[in-house]
Amino acid sequence: MPDPGLRTIWLDPEDPAVVCIIDQRRLPHELCVARLSTWQDGLAAIRDMAVRGAPLIGATAAYSLYLAALAGRSASLQEAAAALVEARPTAINLRWAVDRIVRLAGTVPSNGDLSAAILEDARAICAEDAAICHAIGRHGLALLEAIAQGKDGAPVNVLTHCNAGALATTGLGTATAPIYLAQAAGLAVHVWVDETRPRNQGALTAWELARHDVPHTLIVDNAGGHLMQRGLVDVVITGTDRTTRTGDVANKIGTYLKAVAARDNEVPFYVAVPSTSIDWTLRDGIGGIPIEERDPAEISNVAGDAGQGPGTVRTTAATTPVRNFAFDVTPARLVTGLITERGVCVASEEALTGLYPENVARAG
Amino acid sequence: MPDPGLRTIWLDPEDPAVVCIIDQRRLPHELCVARLSTWQDGLAAIRDMAVRGAPLIGATAAYSLYLAALAGRSASLQEAAAALVEARPTAINLRWAVDRIVRLAGTVPSNGDLSAAILEDARAICAEDAAICHAIGRHGLALLEAIAQGKDGAPVNVLTHCNAGALATTGLGTATAPIYLAQAAGLAVHVWVDETRPRNQGALTAWELARHDVPHTLIVDNAGGHLMQRGLVDVVITGTDRTTRTGDVANKIGTYLKAVAARDNEVPFYVAVPSTSIDWTLRDGIGGIPIEERDPAEISNVAGDAGQGPGTVRTTAATTPVRNFAFDVTPARLVTGLITERGVCVASEEALTGLYPENVARAG
Repeated sequence: MPDPGLRTIWLDPEDPAVVCIIDQRRLPHELCVARLSTWQDGLAAIRDMAVRGAPLIGATAAYSLYLAALAGRSASLQEAAAALVEARPTAINLRWAVDRIVRLAGTVPSNGDLSAAILEDARAICAEDAAICHAIGRHGLALLEAIAQGKDGAPVNVLTHCNAGALATTGLGTATAPIYLAQAAGLAVHVWVDETRPRNQGALTAWELARHDVPHTLIVDNAGGHLMQRGLVDVVITGTDRTTRTGDVANKIGTYLKAVAARDNEVPFYVAVPSTSIDWTLRDGIGGIPIEERDPAEISNVAGDAGQGPGTVRTTAATTPVRNFAFDVTPARLVTGLITERGVCVASEEALTGLYPENVARAG
Repeated sequence: MPDPGLRTIWLDPEDPAVVCIIDQRRLPHELCVARLSTWQDGLAAIRDMAVRGAPLIGATAAYSLYLAALAGRSASLQEAAAALVEARPTAINLRWAVDRIVRLAGTVPSNGDLSAAILEDARAICAEDAAICHAIGRHGLALLEAIAQGKDGAPVNVLTHCNAGALATTGLGTATAPIYLAQAAGLAVHVWVDETRPRNQGALTAWELARHDVPHTLIVDNAGGHLMQRGLVDVVITGTDRTTRTGDVANKIGTYLKAVAARDNEVPFYVAVPSTSIDWTLRDGIGGIPIEERDPAEISNVAGDAGQGPGTVRTTAATTPVRNFAFDVTPARLVTGLITERGVCVASEEALTGLYPENVARAG
C-alpha cells in the first residue's frame, strides 16, 4: 500500500489548541500549512475552500467542534455546530460529522472532559475515513485489474473529475485509492485529469499523482467526450459529495456531462462512495440535493502562479454577469457502479441497502 | 437588423497595403487593432488566434493572399497558400477560401492586376459571409419564435459554446445571428455563455452580447448539463468549424458534451452552418476530420487582466503534463437540425444535399 505521505489535517504536536491543515488554495504552487485556533477559523477554512473534498470537510468540522469545546462553553459548541452545517450545503459528510460529534457531546457528563472526548472522536473519524478509502481502493483495484485483462499490458486509462484524492480525505482518497493501489500492485495505469473549472482542482489531482509517480495528463473539462469517442478512456471514476439511497450522485459540477458521454460511448462510469457520503433520507437526487451556488468571482478571477508568486487574472469583462453552480447530479441510470467500502454495487436502492441493511428504514 | 458595429477585418483606408484586424487575444479587456503588412503576419494572426472563428479565418486567409500578391511574385502566392492551409487544420473555411483565391488567381492574365483581383474577391468573401450570417439569422429566428410560443413571454434561454458570433465572422455571427435578430424583433432571449476553456472565447461572446444589450450569463463549461436538467435551457445553438455532408459537426472542444446532455434532456441542439463550413468530401466526421492539438501552455497559463494591464497565471504545477485538443466531433445523430443560409434541415446527407444539390456528386 502506498503511503500518500500527506496529512491533510492534524493537531499541532506542540500546541494542542491548534489544528493544522494544508491550505489547498496555494497548491500546487506551494505547500502551505494553515493553523486553526478557533472554530471560526475552521468554518472559514471550509467556506473559503482552504480545505475541500467531502470527507475532509467532515473531518475539519469535527476538529472545529473540538476547538469550540476548548473555548469552554457548551453554547459555543451549539453555535459552532449550527454554523458549520450551513458552511457548504451539498456535501453530506459535513452534516454527518457534526451530528456525530453533537450526539457524542450529549453523552459526556457535565464533569467530563468534553474537548478530549471530541478530539478522540475527530481522530476516529479520520482513522475510519482512511480505512474506508483503503477498502474502496481494494474493491476498485479489482475493477481495474479486470479492465487490464483486455489491454494486453497497455495502461488502463482512467478519467477523473475534480480531486477525490488524498487531499480530499484523510487517507488514500476515494476515486484515487484504486489508482494508488494499482500503481503499488504494478498494474499500468494512466489518469486523464479534468482541469475542473472553476476551482481547478485537477491541478491538485495532478500534483498528488505526480508525488506518487502515477502517469497522468491534465485536460480541460471539455475534452473528456472527445477522448472517450477515440477509445482513450477505459473507465471513469469520480468521487461524490452526496449520494442518495437510490444511487443518484451529486458531485463537482460537470460530473454529469462526463457520465452522459460515458454512457454514449459505453465507457464504464464508477463513483467511489464512502458510506459517509450517502444520504439515506433521500431518494430523488435532482429534486432533493441542494446545489451550492458560489461567488461568481471564482469563475471570473483565475488564481495561480504569476511568476513572482501568487496572482490572479480576470478573464471576463468586469461587467459580465456570471453564475457559479458548484455541483450537479448524475442520475443513477448513468452510473455503472458504486465503489463503497463494503464492495461494488449497482446504483440502486436495492443494491445499496443490500450492502448497508442497517439503513433500510432511514428513508425520509 | 442590428448592426454589430464591429468590423473584424478591413483594409486600412489610409494605406491599402495594410490589412487591419481586431486582435481578439486582448478582448474583452481592450479593443486593439493589429496591422498585417505581409502574408506572414496574416498567417501568424491565424495560428496564434489573434483572429479565430472558421468564417473569419477564411476571410483572413483571403486578405493574406492579397498581401502575398502585393509582394509581387506568383511564387509568393503559392508559398502563402501552402502555408495558410496548414495554419489551422480543422476549420474547412480556411481551405475553401484559399482554394477559391488560388483558382481566381489562375484566371488573372499575366498582365492583369493580380492583387486588385484578389482584394476584390477577399471583399466578396466577406460580403457573402455577412449575407450568409444574416440568412442563418432569419432561419434561426423562426426557430426561436416557435420556442417562444410555449414560454408565455418568459425569455427563450439559449445556450451557446465558444464564440460563433460577430467576432468569428464578417457579419452577425452564425450561432449569434438568430439571437441578434430576435433581440431586434423584440423577442425576449437570454443566453447562457459557456466559458469555453482553454481559450475562454465565452468572454468574447459575453462582450459581444453586452454591446447589443442581449441578456446573458457566463457559466463554466461544466455547468450546461445541470442547467438542462433543471429546465433552464430551451435550445442549444453552436457554430461549426467543419460539418461533413452527413451532418457530423466538428466544433470547439466540449461541443459534443453539450450535445449528448441536450439529447439526454430532450433539449433541441442546433448548429448554425454556413455552407462555407461544409466539407462535401467527407461522410465520417469522427474518422475523417483532423482534430487540431495545440500548445499545452494554452491550458496551463491563463491570460487575462491582472489589474494593471494584461497578465498570465499558471494554474498547474510547472511539471504537469497537459494535452490540448482544440475540437471535437458531434455525430449527426445528436444534432436536432442544421441552420444553413438556405434553411433549416435535419443533420443527414439526404437533407444537406437536398438544400445544396450542386454538391451531390462531391463525396470523396
